[in-house]
Amino acid sequence: RGCSRRQLEGRADLPNLARLLEGATGGSRRLPRPGEAAGGDNRMVDLLLAAAFVSDAQYNRNIPFKTSPEAVRLYYLYNHWIMRTATYFFIFLNLSLAVFEEPAVYPLPFLVTSLVEVLCLLVFFGRLVHFAKVTLRNVFWKDTKNICIMVAILLSLTDLTICGVLRIYNVRSIRWSRIVRPIFLINFAESRQIRRAFRSIRNTLPEITYVFLLFMFSLLMFSLMALKLFGERNLQTAEGMPYFKNYLEIVFDLYVLVTAANSPDVMMPAFDFSSWYALFFIAFVIVNTYIFMSLFLAVVYNNYKKHLKNEIRKLAYMKHRKMIEAFNLLKEEEGAQFVVREARWKQLVKLVAPDTSNSHRELLLRISDDEQKGFIDKKSFVQLADLLNIQVITLKIRSHPLGQWMPRVYKSAASRFLRSMVRHRGFVWTYDIIILINAIFIALDEETPYISYAEWVFLALYIAEILLKVYTYEPRAFFGKNQFWNWFDTLIIFAALTATILNTTLKSTTKYNSQQILDIVFILRVLRLIRIVDSVQRFRVIMNTLINIVPTMLTFGGLTLVVYCIFAIIGMELFYGKIQFFPANSNAPHALECGNPALKDSLFARGKYCKNNFNNFASSFIVLMELTVVNQWHDILCGGSVTVQAAKLYFIAFHIVMVIIIVNIFVSFILEAFFVEYSLEKSEVETAIEQKIQELGMGVQEDELQDEQLLDNMESAEHDLEGEGETKPQSKGLVFKIASKRYRTVDALLQRMFEAEIPLEDEGPSFEEILNLSPATAVPSNLTSESAA
Amino acid sequence: RGCSRRQLEGRADLPNLARLLEGATGGSRRLPRPGEAAGGDNRMVDLLLAAAFVSDAQYNRNIPFKTSPEAVRLYYLYNHWIMRTATYFFIFLNLSLAVFEEPAVYPLPFLVTSLVEVLCLLVFFGRLVHFAKVTLRNVFWKDTKNICIMVAILLSLTDLTICGVLRIYNVRSIRWSRIVRPIFLINFAESRQIRRAFRSIRNTLPEITYVFLLFMFSLLMFSLMALKLFGERNLQTAEGMPYFKNYLEIVFDLYVLVTAANSPDVMMPAFDFSSWYALFFIAFVIVNTYIFMSLFLAVVYNNYKKHLKNEIRKLAYMKHRKMIEAFNLLKEEEGAQFVVREARWKQLVKLVAPDTSNSHRELLLRISDDEQKGFIDKKSFVQLADLLNIQVITLKIRSHPLGQWMPRVYKSAASRFLRSMVRHRGFVWTYDIIILINAIFIALDEETPYISYAEWVFLALYIAEILLKVYTYEPRAFFGKNQFWNWFDTLIIFAALTATILNTTLKSTTKYNSQQILDIVFILRVLRLIRIVDSVQRFRVIMNTLINIVPTMLTFGGLTLVVYCIFAIIGMELFYGKIQFFPANSNAPHALECGNPALKDSLFARGKYCKNNFNNFASSFIVLMELTVVNQWHDILCGGSVTVQAAKLYFIAFHIVMVIIIVNIFVSFILEAFFVEYSLEKSEVETAIEQKIQELGMGVQEDELQDEQLLDNMESAEHDLEGEGETKPQSKGLVFKIASKRYRTVDALLQRMFEAEIPLEDEGPSFEEILNLSPATAVPSNLTSESAA
Repeated sequence: RGCSRRQLEGRADLPNLARLLEGATGGSRRLPRPGEAAGGDNRMVDLLLAAAFVSDAQYNRNIPFKTSPEAVRLYYLYNHWIMRTATYFFIFLNLSLAVFEEPAVYPLPFLVTSLVEVLCLLVFFGRLVHFAKVTLRNVFWKDTKNICIMVAILLSLTDLTICGVLRIYNVRSIRWSRIVRPIFLINFAESRQIRRAFRSIRNTLPEITYVFLLFMFSLLMFSLMALKLFGERNLQTAEGMPYFKNYLEIVFDLYVLVTAANSPDVMMPAFDFSSWYALFFIAFVIVNTYIFMSLFLAVVYNNYKKHLKNEIRKLAYMKHRKMIEAFNLLKEEEGAQFVVREARWKQLVKLVAPDTSNSHRELLLRISDDEQKGFIDKKSFVQLADLLNIQVITLKIRSHPLGQWMPRVYKSAASRFLRSMVRHRGFVWTYDIIILINAIFIALDEETPYISYAEWVFLALYIAEILLKVYTYEPRAFFGKNQFWNWFDTLIIFAALTATILNTTLKSTTKYNSQQILDIVFILRVLRLIRIVDSVQRFRVIMNTLINIVPTMLTFGGLTLVVYCIFAIIGMELFYGKIQFFPANSNAPHALECGNPALKDSLFARGKYCKNNFNNFASSFIVLMELTVVNQWHDILCGGSVTVQAAKLYFIAFHIVMVIIIVNIFVSFILEAFFVEYSLEKSEVETAIEQKIQELGMGVQEDELQDEQLLDNMESAEHDLEGEGETKPQSKGLVFKIASKRYRTVDALLQRMFEAEIPLEDEGPSFEEILNLSPATAVPSNLTSESAA
Repeated sequence: RGCSRRQLEGRADLPNLARLLEGATGGSRRLPRPGEAAGGDNRMVDLLLAAAFVSDAQYNRNIPFKTSPEAVRLYYLYNHWIMRTATYFFIFLNLSLAVFEEPAVYPLPFLVTSLVEVLCLLVFFGRLVHFAKVTLRNVFWKDTKNICIMVAILLSLTDLTICGVLRIYNVRSIRWSRIVRPIFLINFAESRQIRRAFRSIRNTLPEITYVFLLFMFSLLMFSLMALKLFGERNLQTAEGMPYFKNYLEIVFDLYVLVTAANSPDVMMPAFDFSSWYALFFIAFVIVNTYIFMSLFLAVVYNNYKKHLKNEIRKLAYMKHRKMIEAFNLLKEEEGAQFVVREARWKQLVKLVAPDTSNSHRELLLRISDDEQKGFIDKKSFVQLADLLNIQVITLKIRSHPLGQWMPRVYKSAASRFLRSMVRHRGFVWTYDIIILINAIFIALDEETPYISYAEWVFLALYIAEILLKVYTYEPRAFFGKNQFWNWFDTLIIFAALTATILNTTLKSTTKYNSQQILDIVFILRVLRLIRIVDSVQRFRVIMNTLINIVPTMLTFGGLTLVVYCIFAIIGMELFYGKIQFFPANSNAPHALECGNPALKDSLFARGKYCKNNFNNFASSFIVLMELTVVNQWHDILCGGSVTVQAAKLYFIAFHIVMVIIIVNIFVSFILEAFFVEYSLEKSEVETAIEQKIQELGMGVQEDELQDEQLLDNMESAEHDLEGEGETKPQSKGLVFKIASKRYRTVDALLQRMFEAEIPLEDEGPSFEEILNLSPATAVPSNLTSESAA
């Protein structure tokens, strides 16, 4: 018999609820309007409303929706994944228009792009109207993000109209409204994380400003000193330019030195003149590069943390509030207290999490209704959202499909031996060695025929590994949701197989070695090697943290995207066509000077930087990326600002926004994520569940078992059973286990931290109070002083 | 009447104690040996021992000294500031020998340097012997730092002898022992902070190593990918070299890309070939530069914090232990408990802090003996070390000396008006404006005669400001220990005055404009402008934090010095003479190629980096500084490693040690310092004192008054008094005030945090247990479980 497990995740699919909402109130019958509902219907509507509250609490949405059944149905529709995905699609479509508009990577006629833009704007408007119907009116109009979207839509339409009209008369105008496009990405409710990051930046600004002013003061002082010390020495730079003559140029050079981009160059003339002058630059670097830059990080991190705490607290309050609302809808009197009866509770859980298995639901019930009294009190009810969020893996002792289809073969001695071999630690080690040998083969020259044959051998070995594992373990367990590396392996190997076959076919038929496919094959081959990291326990821990923070890192991807979009669009308006790139053997005039005679003999042209230009959206992005990495940005700048000296301002602004603020927030985020991981302990709710699992005799000890090990362990537990006879609860064929910590998010951890602070007796602040919470008010005013302590 | 204040700091000067130790036991009579002491003497010895314990606790020394009176006297001598300063002097003398030894900045004969080195080693040995006499034998031999010093002395002497003998036979040998010299800086007890930083690094190493291996793995994977993707394209770099052909070179190039030093250059050939290849570099930069570098910071910071906490906890235990030892020496039975009688307590405080005024001592007594019972119990006694550490400013209502010498003039209407004018906010504003105007004048050209005259006007104005302030405020208050800006101003102005006069004299007499003096004048002039920062409240807060962390930053200076010394000495052995620097108009052969034909047309020679060499200690330091700042280090490296390709290893090792570890620890330190400042609140002990001051009716509210404001406030308090008559305790002419938070150190704050955790009933762990505390053991084993919670 094999052992398998199935995941029971508390994921409620809202459209299911909406369908039920339709069904529950009687098929074709419309939903009762407020005031006209009958008893039974009313109870049903209450249940559905409560379900909406609970599922909202579970997913931490903080939209205060109207409580009429119609609004709830609209709200379900609003949260439907198709609607959400569509919104994202149109946001990115709108942003990607920049690729097709002039200056374009792939030019499209103006008419096409403007039609697409109008379509996008219509979708955004529709989405906004939909949202307005769902939320309370006063909340809707108070929310700045809705106002922002409306203004952005209006601005875009106006600009588009003006541009269209001018184009009819053949006047070229600036499409200035393109920089408002990222507003849609920021302000749609789906991208809460990006908005949070932006709010965090906004809140950090005052503090950052003071440090920045102090930093600028220090910069100006050092520049003044440099002017007095070096200005009259008639020194020359390596390029023969006058050195430190003009105050503003000194300020700029020293600003660049802060980023270390022109590190020894800017010092060399003075240093050559007298060694003592090096002290000036050392002092400058210590004060500005090290101390002030660390100070920026300290301020950003401190504010980020403070603000994050506030946000998380808001979410925790909101969740608590919603659970109480749901409780109030379902409560019945029982003795001196209000409770929710078991039957209602079960209906609710079925509505909220229809995918949950019966046994899982029973587990949750036993945890909530500790003493099996037949009802759930307020305190246990409020925990429901968290209980649903805990991923409980149901370990089903299920035999391997092959064991069912051909039991004789699967249970034969040879098969058993094979399976025990695969389970052996040596199997993993063998493949680790194979991977290492493969790495050497990859590094060797491709042309030797033996080596290209070896590639097939390795592919075969990897495929054999996957097949053996699937043969040994239950396929559904092997491809479980949490089995990151199994998925990774399989995908990489089969992609490599496909690409290699395709490449070989192309090579043999058309004699043409497709470069793109070959490149992909190369990349896939190397990616295969990454798997070895998973074999070392310590590496795995670090990798898990990294995998954990990927979703939030995507937020920063969004943030960066917004900043890049804005700067790329401005950059294209300012610097379009200043620099041209010519392929290596072009004989166009000024090919070596990037098509601009002014760049003759510049560092820019000498470094062959011609492709770093603002001629289209893609190039602009790459230039901005290079500026983010900071190095050589003064040279790139020289290229950018061939004509306008003031273009320096553009680059300095980008540096301040991107490097000083966003990169620091990114670093803060990674720091915080790691500190949370380091101080990772099981939250109270989770421990309660675990305890209950133990009590109910269905549990497996959760020690740090991972992947294969876990499966091994399950196997051995099974073998024990065979000896002891099937008297234990495991005989039910079901074992629960809390899913690995690997997939917990930083957000969830932080939230639990704050939930402990909320008193249960209290109703908590109202929705509006929660929305207006500021970091200054430690706890909302109507909380008891005890909880404030 | 003027108002003044005098600082009464609880600074015990240990030599004073030693003198008293001599005197107390009866002038010429020698100290009683253990076992032979008589009653009265014994009590005196106990008192002196207790004083040693208390003053040790006060200054957080953790040397477990012997308790014999002789050992205590030696210990006093050991801690004498002259002995300590002398040790530091010889440590730095020993380190600075590198400047005079070959390859020397200022060459000295071998005989001289070796004699100086022998002298230094003798001093170190003497210091070590002294220390051995003071501490317990088993502690001494267990302490690795003592073993380290001994080994280092032996190694140095051996090397010196071998070198001397070889030199007689004219054989040049490597002075390899020079790299052990920094060991003395690390291991002498005085530099506890540097040792702590080193311990912190040592403890971080295992964790860092795992992240580093993972990082290297990622680097190797990306390099492999790069080899496969670009290796066979036959691309060329901007210098026409083959691009990404050799695996090891790719690894190195990508390692440099992690530091962003060769940012666009390394990408350009592939990017020119196809824009899509930019994605490879973007992925590389995100993974390695951003994520892994942040991860390094996270690991270093987390460990730094963990380790710091452990160290601080050790210190807190040690302090507690020492105070209990002192208590046990002095305790007498009183009812059911042991106490220290008031008279003995006063004797003790007089011994430990002889500079404390009677009124201050009375204040401390009233705080310790709350109910005026005539004795101090254990709990209050243990606090004494902290009480002595709190800087209580005695605000003495003392009239201005001028007011005493010529009361009529000083109290005249004109004088009063003048003084009230100086105290007015407008006075500060006026000078802020003057400073701004001065800044503009400095920026203007020096040659115009009006402007050089203006310089005199400004100097006169600044001197007038200082004189007016001294006239208005009491001079001793104006030059109080905490008046940083007053000292700063006065020193800068008078230095500028001296230098300007000197410069003018030299100019008019010898017609020779001394460049050095002029440079100093310029720097001083600009420094003067810094004072304006103190006028803005927010800037002042940031500046105060920065001033607060300067002492600990010096620790990092020490750390950097150690690393630089070691790498400079190795660097000089490896790269001496490879590169020569010639002045601009030299016509030596290969002057443009830094005297090395191999460098012809290299980026190194083109950038005129010739002065970046390892030809002497000073140059080496500057090269290492440039490498720390990271930029262009691959170019500097090209220069350094003209002959040996493996020299890359030297630079990579330096980068790992300096940039990845030390710079991150520095950043961690600044982050931590700021977070502590942000969460700064008064410690319990301090609040108790303040409360007592209030109760005793002698207090002034401590709101955030600073400097001039405080003095103003005192003035107004004084005016009130005149009206009310002199009935209040202020009539004593004394007011206490807790010194400004500005000068509290991060260390002290952290310590108080941990002191709260130590239970008072318990004796705490023994000295040896304390010394062996590890971060893993949260609390020592013999503490109650309650305190461990």
